[in-house]
Amino acid sequence: MIADTPSPPYYAVIFTSSRTAGDNGYQEMAELMVRLASQQDGFLGIESAREEIGITVSYWRDLSSIQKWREHVQHTVARNKGRSDWYSAFKTRIAVVERDYGFARNSAVGNDIESIVDLR
Amino acid sequence: MIADTPSPPYYAVIFTSSRTAGDNGYQEMAELMVRLASQQDGFLGIESAREEIGITVSYWRDLSSIQKWREHVQHTVARNKGRSDWYSAFKTRIAVVERDYGFARNSAVGNDIESIVDLR
Repeated sequence: MIADTPSPPYYAVIFTSSRTAGDNGYQEMAELMVRLASQQDGFLGIESAREEIGITVSYWRDLSSIQKWREHVQHTVARNKGRSDWYSAFKTRIAVVERDYGFARNSAVGNDIESIVDLR
Repeated sequence: MIADTPSPPYYAVIFTSSRTAGDNGYQEMAELMVRLASQQDGFLGIESAREEIGITVSYWRDLSSIQKWREHVQHTVARNKGRSDWYSAFKTRIAVVERDYGFARNSAVGNDIESIVDLR
């Protein structure tokens, strides 16, 4: 689902990864992490897809909420398993969303096409 | 493939979408857009995956290169087809990548795990 984030500015954590072979408990942990992240203060939404590579973008109110989630005990355990077992490579990028716009055929996704603001 | 982007700061355009049913020329155009984008001045890399939703993140040197790609004639034609035919919904977010770090089992992906910098 496309995340229904508030008006910018807010933060995006772009996590791109390549998986090792086999599940090895990955799927269960991935689902737990989404549930846990969603409960954290400052969490704004998450979007995820995997084909050749996986991309997960989570959205946060500020750096402090990202930092707190990073220090969460279960998240730390999962990150360590990621390095030891699940990922052949990953890259994490922390970014400030400065503007956004969207379009939805039947219902609004954030700002409607009507409110598209040209890049300046 | 995980994009081999330079050291921050640089820009990310996070494009999240839901597709309508059927291909309707989408795949061919998507491949053309990746080829064309890669040739633009300021292009730094692109990552893409689709399951329930599609996420494409393209990386750019600055806002000016994003704006020029936005105004590219063939990209404009594709964007219009996106609204009329291919997408039931999308959201575009323009963000400044402030920091990044990564890990690769066999070869470096950007900065190695050794150079992970804690969030401050």
